[in-house]
Amino acid sequence: MSARKPKVTVLGGGSWGTAVASIAARNTEVLQWLRDPDIAEAINTKHENPRYLPGMTLTRSLRATADLDQAVAAADVIVAAVPSQHLRGVLESVGEHVRPWIPVVSLVKGLEQGTSKRMTEIINEVLPGHPAGVLSGPNIAKEVVAGYAAAATIAMPDLTTATMLQGLFHVPWYRVYTSEDVLGVEIAGALKNPLAIAVGFGDGLGAGDNTRAMVITRALHELTRLGVAMGGRPETFTGLAGMGDLIATCTSPLSRNRTVGYELGRGKTLDDIIAGMNQVAEGVKSAGVVVSLARAHGVDTPIFDEVDAVINHGKSVESTYRGLLREAPGHEVHGEGW
Amino acid sequence: MSARKPKVTVLGGGSWGTAVASIAARNTEVLQWLRDPDIAEAINTKHENPRYLPGMTLTRSLRATADLDQAVAAADVIVAAVPSQHLRGVLESVGEHVRPWIPVVSLVKGLEQGTSKRMTEIINEVLPGHPAGVLSGPNIAKEVVAGYAAAATIAMPDLTTATMLQGLFHVPWYRVYTSEDVLGVEIAGALKNPLAIAVGFGDGLGAGDNTRAMVITRALHELTRLGVAMGGRPETFTGLAGMGDLIATCTSPLSRNRTVGYELGRGKTLDDIIAGMNQVAEGVKSAGVVVSLARAHGVDTPIFDEVDAVINHGKSVESTYRGLLREAPGHEVHGEGW
Repeated sequence: MSARKPKVTVLGGGSWGTAVASIAARNTEVLQWLRDPDIAEAINTKHENPRYLPGMTLTRSLRATADLDQAVAAADVIVAAVPSQHLRGVLESVGEHVRPWIPVVSLVKGLEQGTSKRMTEIINEVLPGHPAGVLSGPNIAKEVVAGYAAAATIAMPDLTTATMLQGLFHVPWYRVYTSEDVLGVEIAGALKNPLAIAVGFGDGLGAGDNTRAMVITRALHELTRLGVAMGGRPETFTGLAGMGDLIATCTSPLSRNRTVGYELGRGKTLDDIIAGMNQVAEGVKSAGVVVSLARAHGVDTPIFDEVDAVINHGKSVESTYRGLLREAPGHEVHGEGW
Repeated sequence: MSARKPKVTVLGGGSWGTAVASIAARNTEVLQWLRDPDIAEAINTKHENPRYLPGMTLTRSLRATADLDQAVAAADVIVAAVPSQHLRGVLESVGEHVRPWIPVVSLVKGLEQGTSKRMTEIINEVLPGHPAGVLSGPNIAKEVVAGYAAAATIAMPDLTTATMLQGLFHVPWYRVYTSEDVLGVEIAGALKNPLAIAVGFGDGLGAGDNTRAMVITRALHELTRLGVAMGGRPETFTGLAGMGDLIATCTSPLSRNRTVGYELGRGKTLDDIIAGMNQVAEGVKSAGVVVSLARAHGVDTPIFDEVDAVINHGKSVESTYRGLLREAPGHEVHGEGW
């Protein structure tokens, strides 16, 4: 690398984009783009994102702007942190301002509806030639900003870029590991959300810690089976971006996806739950997409199927959960079903 | 199998032995041996184990006795549920009463101090020629008895025996999967306890859900590394007896080993904590044994080492936990350390 440290631009003003921007600002110059100029102003003057991380102090050197073209033009590294259904549009609108060669790192855990595409596939389509990767792990934004220890994996197509980027995001309480398995890390992040909804079903119905551990374990099997069929490496799914993120998402009361499942399990309707949240629970959108992917790859996914049935086809949580438990188990590794 | 259902004898009167006895009694004739005749009487007349599962109703057909020879002589299947340091003595005292051919299933999650031996190794030494295996999974006794859904793996040297035994322990809310990896399933169960203590450290110090998910994930890597070096199959460690049990033990407030770590993290002394518990936390005993095993197999185990340092060498939890977090991370899979 050159002597000058790469400048990072984070696209998106949600809680996780803000958390990563605040961390990276400890290591280098960081500019965050948000749609709302008032929030950009609050970050610049009060070092706070009052909508998504109210009351938490961000790194003082972090700068924010509502001017997308300017934000992109300044970037040596782009970090994409907009909702999965908006990424293509945002990148298309700024393509001509992006400097050559620079890497694009996705924080987005979802798949594009309609195309079932991963975020790095979209980056590769809209910004061909740019190394596209992903930063993913068990990362609850509020905890990371509050300084609790956490860790994540940065996956890039080549290890040199991954190692360079590692240095931009690593701080003493946020450990960043490197990987070359972009597809695996990304799939793990995108697919864990519907699984967290399934775990939430059980919690909402009053199931125990055993049940939760069992569902998480079988969910990881299902995730691994599908992810490997799609081309991911098995070891990625037992790593931070796979198992680590799945455990955090499935056990933290702060997880949005688990909360959706939990409230459904307690009898609320999906519309009421969504109306009460101020950020998207990606699993609601991706449940149907994952099932299509699984069918396309010929992989059996009973847990994903049940989540899709509840979210998109009006099945009741109670009958779903009973359905999940009723299946006859066989050999743990070679058996069918979950 | 013959037309007559195998009779099961459970050796041991702790909470988990009682839970398994109560489940198996739904499928076949079960006799439980306990040292205390008053508890045996309570199980026979009140269908309750007042010491370890007070207030919970056991299967009415479950019978208990304090006569060890009689209990063993009646058995077509022996289930061993005594503490790890007592198993050898109990088996030696009854060897001559054991019927030929019958399988012996261990529920015990620990290693013998002094020899570092697994429970099935002890069974093979004391009762040579008997198929020795293990039933293990994310199983909190109280939840299983209360009817919460749970699952486990039964591992026997051959799949035919495993499948036959599966039918004795499987009930609708307790799913039993089969495996032939006795060593892997057993090692996973024995080694997870010190890891739960490590997770408890963090919880006691006030770490967050991210931190816990990270420690559990790195702990599973360490467990897998050591278990595979000892001869276990990698897939066992991502299964119910590995990851499943680790998650349950590391996240349930009911876990004894996690509680030991939690109280240490909050500043209590080990002596005070042990004095306040009425059952053994196996991880306290096995921490040192695991470290010796790791050295013998040339495996690097930073998390186990730190737990051993606190339990056996007076290191403070705070400095331990900081030590765990301070290490520079490398490649997630190929890197050294955790």
